Amino acid sequence: MICKSIQLYADKPEVTLSTFLWEPSTELYAGPRPAILVCPGGAYLNCSDREADPIALRFAAMGYHAFVLRYSTYFGKAGFPAPGCSDFTPNTDSQYPGPLRDLGKAFLTIRDHAQEWNVDIDRVAVCGFSAGAHNSAMYGAYWNAPVLTEHFGRPAEDFRPAACILSYPLTDYTILESSLSPMAKMLFRMSNTAYFGAEHPTQEQQLTASPALLVGPQTPPTFIWHTAGDNLVPVSQSTSMIANLAAQKVPFEAHIFEDGPHGLAASDQASAGDLSQIDFRAAEWLSLAQSWLQKRFALEIPEPNSLPGM
Amino acid sequence: MICKSIQLYADKPEVTLSTFLWEPSTELYAGPRPAILVCPGGAYLNCSDREADPIALRFAAMGYHAFVLRYSTYFGKAGFPAPGCSDFTPNTDSQYPGPLRDLGKAFLTIRDHAQEWNVDIDRVAVCGFSAGAHNSAMYGAYWNAPVLTEHFGRPAEDFRPAACILSYPLTDYTILESSLSPMAKMLFRMSNTAYFGAEHPTQEQQLTASPALLVGPQTPPTFIWHTAGDNLVPVSQSTSMIANLAAQKVPFEAHIFEDGPHGLAASDQASAGDLSQIDFRAAEWLSLAQSWLQKRFALEIPEPNSLPGM
Repeated sequence: MICKSIQLYADKPEVTLSTFLWEPSTELYAGPRPAILVCPGGAYLNCSDREADPIALRFAAMGYHAFVLRYSTYFGKAGFPAPGCSDFTPNTDSQYPGPLRDLGKAFLTIRDHAQEWNVDIDRVAVCGFSAGAHNSAMYGAYWNAPVLTEHFGRPAEDFRPAACILSYPLTDYTILESSLSPMAKMLFRMSNTAYFGAEHPTQEQQLTASPALLVGPQTPPTFIWHTAGDNLVPVSQSTSMIANLAAQKVPFEAHIFEDGPHGLAASDQASAGDLSQIDFRAAEWLSLAQSWLQKRFALEIPEPNSLPGM
Repeated sequence: MICKSIQLYADKPEVTLSTFLWEPSTELYAGPRPAILVCPGGAYLNCSDREADPIALRFAAMGYHAFVLRYSTYFGKAGFPAPGCSDFTPNTDSQYPGPLRDLGKAFLTIRDHAQEWNVDIDRVAVCGFSAGAHNSAMYGAYWNAPVLTEHFGRPAEDFRPAACILSYPLTDYTILESSLSPMAKMLFRMSNTAYFGAEHPTQEQQLTASPALLVGPQTPPTFIWHTAGDNLVPVSQSTSMIANLAAQKVPFEAHIFEDGPHGLAASDQASAGDLSQIDFRAAEWLSLAQSWLQKRFALEIPEPNSLPGM
């Protein structure tokens, strides 16, 4: 496994693409491998480690290349400041369309290394969590739009994602504020400052940043999961997206588990910081995503040759 | 994930320990992590890639550190020579006790780096496949014996494995020859040359190298799986070990799947070179090993603190 961290821009040390690349072997599948690009959450304030390596390892273990994108966030690489500490410089790159363009840059980087890394560039999925799932869903909406194509001067096809996996995503700002708990409202004032530059986004900003309302023919096949008990990002954020995927006849799959808090990640010991972050039923989402991916991402393992194997 | 390959002896480029180490994070489990040391098979002729990274990735994804040991084999790093080609220098380090001592060296290396790598040195399991499972079972028999302790000048406790996972192992040379198919007999003449220095081991060599007959109080808790349909290493190699584990009251678990050829590895697309190496039922062994490990290797994830999580 080739694990390395690549800085995507010379002047942005916090924006990195971490690789989990299969090394070539004459004994293993030799063709180009599909890849999963993991986009951790963190309310656009930081990128959570809990939704990074533990997830990439799961997809790598399925036989895919995996990547983790740490995109621009308000607190950047330093993470949350200590309580009472205001001695930091907010990162304005965390504002739309910064994080979306970081995803575009990651796709271009993978494309430009596809031969070297043996990536099946037509089969690259993005898999995001919470704010990272928002960023991923935004990418599913905007991958062929000028915000990326004109910015990078590259054709739309260079950005096309093959699938989108959304874990407890934020998808619809137009219904968000009214559905939040008081604790969540506090967090979203910070998150909105990071992503919109203001505690309360304008109606135009809300519409621009609501991928549930932007589902269209460009939207890739989508897998969504959420817990109905999510205490931070209401499950209505997924149901809004699901309803629009159904209406637009985009291939999709959805799993809503009854119980479980926000931010379960892999929902097992590998991604948990404490026991509230483990739920054995919700942990099934990764097996469900694996079998869903199998429809489109299966490695084309050859028939055996005539010699008996050893 | 820190993935690097460490050469264990200055003069043996083919003996390497590949790491799959979790990086520290304030958001994830912070304590020392248990580790799984993977020992690929290959009839002591080579070390198969199919039983290396695909397996280490599965254990890493469970939250454990993982390692792959490429021990001394007859063909070494070059792998099998081309048909008809005899232009290579056999590696006599592949003879007993070379591969066993390579495992000892790997355990000492992990122990000596335990603090740096954050390894829970009291919870290191060895997980071998075929000849690598033989080597692992031999280690379970001999970890506290002079062949290791005197050779390295280290106390027995420095070598203690916490558990042993054996995939389609070779465990009993005294019953092997008579149970082999003609094709398997050909392979074992080569394999015996590699491990014993002769096509047919003496009775003394057979007894020395039959961990099924050496089960005792030193034997760690053991997980074994095999397929009854194994066309190369007969399932009697596992049943002999199982019977002796039961007789000696060593904690063990065994799963014998009805169907499937030799060398299934993870038995899925990640480890398959061709379709004969995928069997969906046998692939369950890794989930079964995961829940078995959980009894002894569970990460001690803490209770949530009083602040609401994000």
